[in-house]
Amino acid sequence: MTTDPLVVFTPSGKRGHFPVGTPVLTAARQLGVDLDSVCGGRGICSKCQITPSYGEFPKHGVTVRDTALSEWNAVEERYDQKRGLKEGRRLGCQATVQGDIVIDVPPESQVHRQVVRKAASARDITMAPATKLYYVEVTEPDMHVPTGDLERLERALKDQWDIDGITADLTILTRLQTVLRKGDWKITVALHRGHRDTAHRVTEIWPGLTDDRIYGLAIDLGSTTIAAHLCDLRNGTVVTSSGVMNPQIRFGEDLMSRVSYSMMNPGGDKEMTGAVRNAINGLTEVIATEAGIRPFQILETVFVCNPVMHHLLLGIDPVELGQAPFALATSEAVALSARDLDLNVMNENAQIYVLPCIAGHVGADAAAVALSEEPGKSDDLVLIVDVGTNAEILLGNTSRVLACSSPTGPAFEGAQISSGQRAAPGAIERIEIDPVTKTPRFRVIGSELWSDEDGFDAAIATTGITGICGSGIIEAVAELRIAGLLDPSGLLGSPEATGTPRMLPEGRTYSYLIHDGSAEGGPRITVTQGDIRAIQLAKSALYAGARLLMDEMGVDKVDRVVLAGAFGAHISTKHAMVLGMIPDAPLDKVTSAGNAAGTGARIALCNTDARAEIETVVGQITKVETAIEPKFQEHFVNANAIPHKTDPFPELSTVVTLPDVSFNTGGESEGGGGRRRRRRA
Amino acid sequence: MTTDPLVVFTPSGKRGHFPVGTPVLTAARQLGVDLDSVCGGRGICSKCQITPSYGEFPKHGVTVRDTALSEWNAVEERYDQKRGLKEGRRLGCQATVQGDIVIDVPPESQVHRQVVRKAASARDITMAPATKLYYVEVTEPDMHVPTGDLERLERALKDQWDIDGITADLTILTRLQTVLRKGDWKITVALHRGHRDTAHRVTEIWPGLTDDRIYGLAIDLGSTTIAAHLCDLRNGTVVTSSGVMNPQIRFGEDLMSRVSYSMMNPGGDKEMTGAVRNAINGLTEVIATEAGIRPFQILETVFVCNPVMHHLLLGIDPVELGQAPFALATSEAVALSARDLDLNVMNENAQIYVLPCIAGHVGADAAAVALSEEPGKSDDLVLIVDVGTNAEILLGNTSRVLACSSPTGPAFEGAQISSGQRAAPGAIERIEIDPVTKTPRFRVIGSELWSDEDGFDAAIATTGITGICGSGIIEAVAELRIAGLLDPSGLLGSPEATGTPRMLPEGRTYSYLIHDGSAEGGPRITVTQGDIRAIQLAKSALYAGARLLMDEMGVDKVDRVVLAGAFGAHISTKHAMVLGMIPDAPLDKVTSAGNAAGTGARIALCNTDARAEIETVVGQITKVETAIEPKFQEHFVNANAIPHKTDPFPELSTVVTLPDVSFNTGGESEGGGGRRRRRRA
Repeated sequence: MTTDPLVVFTPSGKRGHFPVGTPVLTAARQLGVDLDSVCGGRGICSKCQITPSYGEFPKHGVTVRDTALSEWNAVEERYDQKRGLKEGRRLGCQATVQGDIVIDVPPESQVHRQVVRKAASARDITMAPATKLYYVEVTEPDMHVPTGDLERLERALKDQWDIDGITADLTILTRLQTVLRKGDWKITVALHRGHRDTAHRVTEIWPGLTDDRIYGLAIDLGSTTIAAHLCDLRNGTVVTSSGVMNPQIRFGEDLMSRVSYSMMNPGGDKEMTGAVRNAINGLTEVIATEAGIRPFQILETVFVCNPVMHHLLLGIDPVELGQAPFALATSEAVALSARDLDLNVMNENAQIYVLPCIAGHVGADAAAVALSEEPGKSDDLVLIVDVGTNAEILLGNTSRVLACSSPTGPAFEGAQISSGQRAAPGAIERIEIDPVTKTPRFRVIGSELWSDEDGFDAAIATTGITGICGSGIIEAVAELRIAGLLDPSGLLGSPEATGTPRMLPEGRTYSYLIHDGSAEGGPRITVTQGDIRAIQLAKSALYAGARLLMDEMGVDKVDRVVLAGAFGAHISTKHAMVLGMIPDAPLDKVTSAGNAAGTGARIALCNTDARAEIETVVGQITKVETAIEPKFQEHFVNANAIPHKTDPFPELSTVVTLPDVSFNTGGESEGGGGRRRRRRA
Repeated sequence: MTTDPLVVFTPSGKRGHFPVGTPVLTAARQLGVDLDSVCGGRGICSKCQITPSYGEFPKHGVTVRDTALSEWNAVEERYDQKRGLKEGRRLGCQATVQGDIVIDVPPESQVHRQVVRKAASARDITMAPATKLYYVEVTEPDMHVPTGDLERLERALKDQWDIDGITADLTILTRLQTVLRKGDWKITVALHRGHRDTAHRVTEIWPGLTDDRIYGLAIDLGSTTIAAHLCDLRNGTVVTSSGVMNPQIRFGEDLMSRVSYSMMNPGGDKEMTGAVRNAINGLTEVIATEAGIRPFQILETVFVCNPVMHHLLLGIDPVELGQAPFALATSEAVALSARDLDLNVMNENAQIYVLPCIAGHVGADAAAVALSEEPGKSDDLVLIVDVGTNAEILLGNTSRVLACSSPTGPAFEGAQISSGQRAAPGAIERIEIDPVTKTPRFRVIGSELWSDEDGFDAAIATTGITGICGSGIIEAVAELRIAGLLDPSGLLGSPEATGTPRMLPEGRTYSYLIHDGSAEGGPRITVTQGDIRAIQLAKSALYAGARLLMDEMGVDKVDRVVLAGAFGAHISTKHAMVLGMIPDAPLDKVTSAGNAAGTGARIALCNTDARAEIETVVGQITKVETAIEPKFQEHFVNANAIPHKTDPFPELSTVVTLPDVSFNTGGESEGGGGRRRRRRA
């Protein structure tokens, strides 16, 4: 009795018997093995490369002889000469089964391969993008069967790829006839199908089989910065990342001032919409140039953003978001074309997906964090804090997820700080103050050296020391407190009280001098009393939001804390806890997730199932409104101090004990009713 | 035993028992009675008016007492005072069932009422438009249930109208919040759902319940003229009709010269596309002004056109249509938004539907004729000829339908005719030539009088006699033949040979003088030898196309002939047959269908089922290509003459016998090799 040869695929382990002469690609498809192919098995795209294994495979119960696959053929030979085929590789569409065989599908031949995220997170992205390339050969027109070119393309996609139903905008239809004839009736099409679509949409066409890759942008549209990752839509690789300041800052630093701008200025929302779209166009150009691609190759873009940015991006006046009940124009995910948003640098047919908003104050950025960090899949209670101009806060576990947004303002990003700046080369990002000498040492972005180490001056010669960024100001404030230069109420001491001439008088308050570059024409970098107050407000808002969610959940501690946000990765956990930015948690249970919103955007870009998932998850999140909740104000006021903490921080107390200093006997505010403090002459 | 009261609706005859207190509208809905309502039963739209009948109804087995409906209520009273309610009318949503009752639904309260076509055709249009108005009351936003305004509108449409799933463009989304608040959470929405759509699309919104009606345009986009009907989308009434010349004429009189223009001039297709879209915008403005509506109320537009106009409208270079195999870019129906075509006078969200093309030479206009005239539903074999710059010809019955297009040129429309003009006041449209005196009498558009009747001069005083239109030139040529002034080869005789000084020499040929207005500064209107030749070419093309279809069908006669086209209604059947424009058929079997393509467009505008139907029908039509068929040339050449017909026209021969004259012994063409004819001094 003869049986057909056994074919075993690794790493999937899928196996089956196939008649002699079956192409490996055919066997893979019938078994549902994840083996790529763009040309549909014509031996021209080379995406279906496989590695046959020969010898004894007791694990699979197979002995593979060296005649198990057909001979190397002319198509493979030509491809090898033209582009080179790795040692041991075969083309799956050319090699046919001749005997029992074990075949490995290398990662680069897998469509749905996983992309390991760079950040230290457990979640990988499975590739299932909405846009893919297909090569097809279209029947030539026949006067006696008078179907249109589009209908014959549709027929070819059905016959060759089993794709049912396509649509094409006029921008494609107007070019289709030329491209089909130029490619001699062979064509590569980019087809987009969102998870809610019934038909595939043709978004780009190329004559013949194209060498072009296609890309997507994952854009985290923040109030202060716009960050974009350019991803290869075949494998999810982040090719380039880049960012720009949000030009809307000129209309207002924070969201509410932008809403006010819109209320006070007729057409103000249109101005802001135009500004942000222009900035995205500029960023797209920059990122395409950096990556060395043509912008039309960008065929998808995913946006995550807070509700105000969401509305301003879409061209919706955000005025309703400035007042109770904070009604969104639309809360669900939005899908449209690049041209609808005047995004005219990327492909005009690029398909845009904006994640759903959770509520009027908790946006698509929070949804993206939920997609990335998956609090609803966590067994222990996790607090996720995404720190930006607004803080998005999520608290939950498998039973329930809560969310709120807290208006921290831009202080954490270095804005509204006297020496503040964006995290860029030249910015002080780390700082330590010697508790005895009260002298600082610091590190500057662009160098790994501390300022008191040899070679520091040379290392920073090109950038200089230009300011202090978000993570730097947090460390500075915490270090000032640790060094006894700042009292629990947040007041900086005088030179007399602290014993260091680095405390400089400024009006009726004092500033701490970190670095004086004025001799070399550089800036004097100080932490002023105003800076301390800005950080106190920000950290109080953050803390109060988290506490409000804990109240709602009925808990007074959390199992773990995840710090996310553009600079979440850079915050020192120790310093954040000294400041009281976040509720108490064991130090080893506080982790950083990097730019979780951006990661969520990348996940949604690479995987349409993730879009369906987050749309469901968002509907299940309980949203807590900070603006109208009296307890928020209470928590906010209570969180203002930076108290002497020993008991609540057993882990922290082994590291540092905060001194119980006090500098204030009246009040430093100019309008305050307290008695005036002495001014230095 | 008590039973619930019986409710009988007329004219449908639907009946059922309902509990006392059931609103009539509710009963109607449950029985599937076609009773309109825009406000969903809130007593504000007044669309659900009904007429109760009282007394004995043996036919229905009911006695209706005067207490059978609830008393006239405050809502009805208010409506009656405000807008007036016809005697005997009640509001179906207010009047409740109290006893057995017979209720008549007047035509204006029926949604799916039929609109009787004005033309003498058997087919009525059933109203089932893709766009309808819905009034809904939307839940106000709630901070604790943070759905967007769009999602609450969607919910309201589901709850109040059982409509599943809506989509809204940014143009709607950006206005939604303002409109909802202006209408105090009451809103009227225009929803569009095409027959291929799964979701309803919001295309316009009004605060509260709007008084605005919504309209659609049915546009017959011809090579020479663009004709549009403005229809009320609630009842299908044609409110206004208007037309303009197709400005593309400056790029070429006929389709092939426009294709050539595109081939010879880079960007030429874009110029032509821009020209025709501008013309449509202008026409939309004119028609809206004439109808006294605002153009944004136009929410649908249906186009029918030949393939070249189809491509030029959509912005597709028609170059492929100029050469075999005449490949269409797309043959299926096209659905898009007005803004996609830069149609910016009508509502930018107006939904456009372009009927499918049958083939590269047989367009959406032929499909519209098929939709209107339904050859596939005819038991006898019908030949349908739509005469325009191109003639679309359909031949078929229930078993099979054939179609072709024949390049008649614009002569039938009065173009390329020496004294030719568009059918407009002042144009000669009817003509008779006395066979004895060879003197003409004629009628001019704008007057019912013949030129030899009393009062004619006064009747035409304002318009004058300006030229001769398409139907006039056909009659003129036929009458010249009947009067013996034209020989069977199409040659006009000399004054000597014909005995009338109306034959004027012109080069080596002769013209027949119809009217000399030169004494009053008006034109001299003649029929020249060139005119005869143009008409001969046109009629030969038309006849050859029809014959080709008959060959394909395997018949040498047809049961009936339908003449369609903008001027189909005006052609004299007798004269068309004298000329040999159409194959032989009994005179009483030759009818006119008016502008059948325009009627097809109206049907598709008012009824989405008709769109589905024609898309199916078009796929079943066998298309015959004239351009490559040698028999077409043969028929064309054979059809050139206007022979002495007695036998083939038994019916006609009772009316007229064509003289067997002959004027030619050589050939009149200047480059002809025949011997020169005498010239008059």
